[in-house]
Amino acid sequence: MIYPNPAAVEAAFYTAFANLDLEQMTTVWARGDEVSCIHPGGGLLRGTRDVLQSWASIFHGTELPRISHRVVHTSGEGGLAIHVVEEHVSSASTAREATVIATNVYRRTGDGWQMTLHHASLPLVENKAGDGGRSRPLH
Amino acid sequence: MIYPNPAAVEAAFYTAFANLDLEQMTTVWARGDEVSCIHPGGGLLRGTRDVLQSWASIFHGTELPRISHRVVHTSGEGGLAIHVVEEHVSSASTAREATVIATNVYRRTGDGWQMTLHHASLPLVENKAGDGGRSRPLH
Repeated sequence: MIYPNPAAVEAAFYTAFANLDLEQMTTVWARGDEVSCIHPGGGLLRGTRDVLQSWASIFHGTELPRISHRVVHTSGEGGLAIHVVEEHVSSASTAREATVIATNVYRRTGDGWQMTLHHASLPLVENKAGDGGRSRPLH
Repeated sequence: MIYPNPAAVEAAFYTAFANLDLEQMTTVWARGDEVSCIHPGGGLLRGTRDVLQSWASIFHGTELPRISHRVVHTSGEGGLAIHVVEEHVSSASTAREATVIATNVYRRTGDGWQMTLHHASLPLVENKAGDGGRSRPLH
C-alpha cells in the first residue's frame, strides 16, 4: 500500500487501530531502526520490529475499540509532517471515553508517506479552561 | 536571544528548566497560537501564553530539579527539526529518578530557531528488554 500524503497514512493508522488490523498497521509504519513509538504510559519503543510487535500485543484479544480522532495542529516541510491529534477511545464495555493526545510524525519515503513516530499520552487530570495549566502535576 | 540551531534552543530549554528560569524559558518558545505543550499526565496546552503560564506554575515554589537529557533520535528537513529525548529528572529530596520521554519540535523563525512543541510523558511501567512491548498497558 502506497500512501500519497500524510492524511492518507494517518487515516490508515486509525482504521487499522479501530479494526485491530495488524496487516494494515504494518503498511503504515516506515521500515528501520529510526521509527519510534510511545504508547500511553509506556516507554520508548524503537525500530519497526519492536513497534509492530507492540501493536500485535495490543491487538491480541482486545475487543474492537471505538476510536475517533481530531487533528488539532499540523506542521510540515518538504517530506516531513507533524500532526498533533486528539484521540477519543472507548469500547463497547467501557462507558467512559478516554482522550489521548498523540504526536504523529510522517515521512515521505521511496514507498510513499509512512509513519515514523507515534507519541501518545493520557492526561491524568483534566484541563481547567483558562487556568494555563495550574491544575496539572509537576513536569 | 537568537538560537542558531535546534541543539542551541534545546540546550536553552533544559537549562531554563534546570534553573527554573522563566525568563530563559520565554526565549525558547515560538510566538503564536500554534505552539503546543503536553506535560506528563497533562492535557494539551496551546498558544504561547498558556504554555508559558504552565511553566510559570511548574517553576513556582519548586526546588531546583536535577535534569539531564539524552537525544535518542533526530529528524528534520529545512526549517523543521524533531528530537526524541529521554529526560532524567530528580530532585535533592527525591531519591528516585524519573525518566520522561519527550518529543521536541523546533522551527526556524525570523527570530532564529524556537521550540514549537514539547510532548512529554512518563512511562508508568518499565520496558522489558526485548519483549516488544508486551508488558505495556493497552494503547
